[in-house]
Amino acid sequence: MIKINRQNILKAKIGPKNGMEPAVLRELCMAKQPLVAAVLRSAGKEGYGFLKLPDNAKLLKQIQTFAAAQKKYKWENILVLGIGGSALGVTAIKEALLGCFHDVFRKPRLLVLDNVDPVFITDAAERLDMKKTLFVVISKSGTTVEPMALFALAKEKMMKTAGKNWKKHFVFITDPRVGLLREIAGNEGIAAFEVPPNVGGRYSVLSSVGLLPAALAGLDAAGLLKGAKKMRGLIAKAKGEENPALLLAALQHYFDKEKKKPMTVVMPYCNELWRVADWYRQLLAESIGKNGHSGPTPLSALGATDQHSQVQLWNEGPDNKFFIFLRVISQAADLKIGKILPKPMDFLNGKTLGRILDASYKGTSESLAKNGRPNVTLEIPKTDAETVGALFMLFEFQVALLGLMYGVNAFNQPGVEHGKQITKKILSGR
Amino acid sequence: MIKINRQNILKAKIGPKNGMEPAVLRELCMAKQPLVAAVLRSAGKEGYGFLKLPDNAKLLKQIQTFAAAQKKYKWENILVLGIGGSALGVTAIKEALLGCFHDVFRKPRLLVLDNVDPVFITDAAERLDMKKTLFVVISKSGTTVEPMALFALAKEKMMKTAGKNWKKHFVFITDPRVGLLREIAGNEGIAAFEVPPNVGGRYSVLSSVGLLPAALAGLDAAGLLKGAKKMRGLIAKAKGEENPALLLAALQHYFDKEKKKPMTVVMPYCNELWRVADWYRQLLAESIGKNGHSGPTPLSALGATDQHSQVQLWNEGPDNKFFIFLRVISQAADLKIGKILPKPMDFLNGKTLGRILDASYKGTSESLAKNGRPNVTLEIPKTDAETVGALFMLFEFQVALLGLMYGVNAFNQPGVEHGKQITKKILSGR
Repeated sequence: MIKINRQNILKAKIGPKNGMEPAVLRELCMAKQPLVAAVLRSAGKEGYGFLKLPDNAKLLKQIQTFAAAQKKYKWENILVLGIGGSALGVTAIKEALLGCFHDVFRKPRLLVLDNVDPVFITDAAERLDMKKTLFVVISKSGTTVEPMALFALAKEKMMKTAGKNWKKHFVFITDPRVGLLREIAGNEGIAAFEVPPNVGGRYSVLSSVGLLPAALAGLDAAGLLKGAKKMRGLIAKAKGEENPALLLAALQHYFDKEKKKPMTVVMPYCNELWRVADWYRQLLAESIGKNGHSGPTPLSALGATDQHSQVQLWNEGPDNKFFIFLRVISQAADLKIGKILPKPMDFLNGKTLGRILDASYKGTSESLAKNGRPNVTLEIPKTDAETVGALFMLFEFQVALLGLMYGVNAFNQPGVEHGKQITKKILSGR
Repeated sequence: MIKINRQNILKAKIGPKNGMEPAVLRELCMAKQPLVAAVLRSAGKEGYGFLKLPDNAKLLKQIQTFAAAQKKYKWENILVLGIGGSALGVTAIKEALLGCFHDVFRKPRLLVLDNVDPVFITDAAERLDMKKTLFVVISKSGTTVEPMALFALAKEKMMKTAGKNWKKHFVFITDPRVGLLREIAGNEGIAAFEVPPNVGGRYSVLSSVGLLPAALAGLDAAGLLKGAKKMRGLIAKAKGEENPALLLAALQHYFDKEKKKPMTVVMPYCNELWRVADWYRQLLAESIGKNGHSGPTPLSALGATDQHSQVQLWNEGPDNKFFIFLRVISQAADLKIGKILPKPMDFLNGKTLGRILDASYKGTSESLAKNGRPNVTLEIPKTDAETVGALFMLFEFQVALLGLMYGVNAFNQPGVEHGKQITKKILSGR
């Protein structure tokens, strides 16, 4: 299971300015312990529906059956039309389990079209063979501008390309009862899965929103749920600083409020987990950034790559960040350098890439510690479906805890309404 | 040419807390005007070499000749081995001019391997046809761990695959005299281009570092330089707030220091320019983040996508950010929605994606303004090579100005040394 290395927040390691005594950390976590039970008690209530998603064996079965039935079409492209919470989770699963070059080298491609940029969409539309494409249209409300605009274009195209058979190229994921997508599904007889009403978009990755595209791409949807369930069990049982969700939430809140660190950097030393950090950006920003003053700003970064881009600022710029590293212990593949390089680079000979990457992680986390910059590390056994599911649950639970710590509703997003209204007004010509 | 819309920093628009009177803005820029001449006077001095890169017609010719000669090999893959400043500029050019799906649909692929993640690299190595691959190895010092590790693996592989012909699969970009790459180039007779010693990695995109991969991928390297030259001319001539580099630098410094906004968000409403924002992240962070307290933290975002991820926090979270939007006026391609959607989404019928995207930009920038959050917009005529070259020069000049405003050396990066030493020590087993 995932463990958290917290050496680099202790006073003994990072000094008195930001460092904590072990007893202070212990007390901080124990004081917040009742919040864990409070979150668990809310399971199933508005917003807290995400806690029950790992138990939905019936949905899993439906998804697996649907995905198996689609195999006969030999789709070359699974095209997800969704944005925000309907895109970031799928992308995170895809990169974690299929790698970063999947669409370049293998099929079916799993492409997420999460914008209405005209060049981006035209390029995809002109190059993809639409006869071999399945569209997964995702909008919880069924009225999100971007996926609905793309759905309109896709429907028009497929009616031309496939005639009456256009409907078999579509599957929807939306509210079980209301909204335009649900209405169209009913009228046209298009397959449609549900986003449970008590689950918000950014907490929906373990619903059909994440599971269906994963299953269509041949990925282990069951493993995602299994990992999430295990993590939920661990969080429900573990006390104080041994509880990973509680520890992360308590530290993030403490460093923001007590030590003036309004930013949290999430940095996997792993290309495949980079998009999990992007998914977390939405989860944290939309859940906690409200009420005019609260909410750390999330930053995502990639190790070792961003050592050559951001570490200068992190080490010697303003002391205003808290860092969460993700470190993978066992690599699924690796390459070893032979006796190739002369001095002064001969120290790389005989080393694997995994070892070089890990030494880079140690270099960065230790240099930050030496500069007094607090950082913790999630030690991840390996990047499989169970691990990814566990990470989703860990971060969702952590953010639900942060909602209670900050005293904000972690499940709404009133701050995006005004911009939406202006956009709609412009487009309606009113 | 690129223009800056600055309505949303004025008091009349965003209120008294963050807003400026027009006269204050005018005076602020005029007071800093002498710094423009100071930067121009330094052209060619240590670090300031970037200012002269657009004039190197001889290098451009060499690059074009080399790229033309490579055509006979019919490379399927141009593989850049570089990290930080040796990767971010190439990636920015690639996405801006080839689009986001280039490697999925077309050849030669232009892949940038900017990490030593073992799964990431193994995946590429196993899938690519090495016989049809050209490696562009970029390291200014010739001793950067990540590209040198990948070079070692590539050399070993190509010696097995191509025998004595392995050398024709490589071209280097490195210091003209010192370092291991230069040494190997000399010993083995491998083609090698130069990074001028007075140009730092993060300012090197308009040297062979950006131009050679661009030319190898068939892109308009001359256009990049032409656009940069035009922008440099504009910056040298325009006074006060009409000077885009001066205006951006003055505002960024002002909002950081006077209005407590330690973060700058760069958000193109354009997938193709998203990586320019990532390139800027390094430029700003490494150049200004030093001396223990100075330097805004850069964030890159994508419109409209991140409206569904970050705008909640930006509008209603802590008031600690300054925003730079990039807006493309004329789209290279577009798609129009037919009479497809029923109510309540029928307002999208008859609209182009470009218009929807632009309405989204307006919704976001105006809602931020209404919440008193300062933002400016770079109005970009279109995304071609000249525009991209102009953006590079604009931002590089702006950051050089910021160096003078903050009183820091914008061209070194001492804060990454300690981590590097730890990494090397671990790998050397000492």
